[in-house]
Amino acid sequence: MKGISLLGGPVDLIPADFFENISHNRPDLLVGVDRGAWFLLEKGIVPNLAIGDFDSLKKKELTEIEAKVSDVRYSTPIKDLTDSELMLESCFQNYHLDNLTILGATGGRIDHFLVNLFTVLKPRFRSYAPRITIQDQQNILKFYLPGKHLIKPIADYKYVGVINLEAVTDLRIKDAKYELDNFTSTYPVSFASNEFKEVTEPFELSFSKGLIMIDYSRDINRFINI
Amino acid sequence: MKGISLLGGPVDLIPADFFENISHNRPDLLVGVDRGAWFLLEKGIVPNLAIGDFDSLKKKELTEIEAKVSDVRYSTPIKDLTDSELMLESCFQNYHLDNLTILGATGGRIDHFLVNLFTVLKPRFRSYAPRITIQDQQNILKFYLPGKHLIKPIADYKYVGVINLEAVTDLRIKDAKYELDNFTSTYPVSFASNEFKEVTEPFELSFSKGLIMIDYSRDINRFINI
Repeated sequence: MKGISLLGGPVDLIPADFFENISHNRPDLLVGVDRGAWFLLEKGIVPNLAIGDFDSLKKKELTEIEAKVSDVRYSTPIKDLTDSELMLESCFQNYHLDNLTILGATGGRIDHFLVNLFTVLKPRFRSYAPRITIQDQQNILKFYLPGKHLIKPIADYKYVGVINLEAVTDLRIKDAKYELDNFTSTYPVSFASNEFKEVTEPFELSFSKGLIMIDYSRDINRFINI
Repeated sequence: MKGISLLGGPVDLIPADFFENISHNRPDLLVGVDRGAWFLLEKGIVPNLAIGDFDSLKKKELTEIEAKVSDVRYSTPIKDLTDSELMLESCFQNYHLDNLTILGATGGRIDHFLVNLFTVLKPRFRSYAPRITIQDQQNILKFYLPGKHLIKPIADYKYVGVINLEAVTDLRIKDAKYELDNFTSTYPVSFASNEFKEVTEPFELSFSKGLIMIDYSRDINRFINI
């Protein structure tokens, strides 16, 4: 079971072909979170599940969501779970997804964006981390738990950043352009702009404690003013 | 001594009036980092200092920077300091700035953005944190070291996020819309969407260990499709 979840982040950061693709090739579960649910309806796409406190919607927009979407869940962030948390819980606990790709999670308000990055650090959600991908126009983010992992190249994504989102022990990067050996830190560090040695050759990532995010990224236009 | 530093992030996230303001009201030190140096020259503004490995510039652009800017410093990220690190070192160690506002640091490649956020966590740069502001069109980010702080409202910024960028001890938020008492965590958490009680009333932030980022933020257009 594969799912796609669209959050309410800036629409211009969503990959250009997303809405086109999604209408021709539906995932097993399509989720709209808060304003993301409305973005989908506006394109004539009805998600299977809508989640949010919906305070960024006008009343008639919410009414339309409630009329069309079969499963609508209301978050109460202050007392209970945030939108992102209720979304993860619903996708993995209730809908038993194997993999979830999240869009509309980057850009805009940075405190919101960091909620989306940091939620996988919470004990309740940590085990879901390896099954989650966050994607926008320039970035594909993946999450890894302690152990040894092969990080494979993705076509058209030139750079690969290795980021320990929390304290990390014995972080090692082997067979990438820039290597790292037994790095230990009590605070997050972003090792940006690493690269694969060859477009077909993975590198090895290993660590014994912590949670690592990999950022596959690309320039939209390196010489932006040309 | 106040400084402004422009990095090479997406130009559309830079506050709309930035280039206009800067040409009428120069700070004591104006810094262009990598492509940021070229953005300034294109607008007819010559920074005092240009820093970078400049690999995002064409040769003739770098030649023009070298001809016009009196202090040009070349970073060698793999062996030595990253662009951001050399920029902070130069601003605070050599130019003795009291305050530095950084623009062009958000958006685009997320590994780059996180370098800009996480650099203040490194022991070598940690003491500069309280003097740094990162700003874009929607966010004003400020950094706090352990102790008790009064967080004052900023006009037109409705929301305020409190984010522990690393492990934190005894985090307390008092007299804000949503309070927090003696929160301790081994990993980063983003407490998003808090608000000031009144537009003139500060709230109290205190913690005994860690580093806190405050994100003053606003919606550009809450109902984005209206």
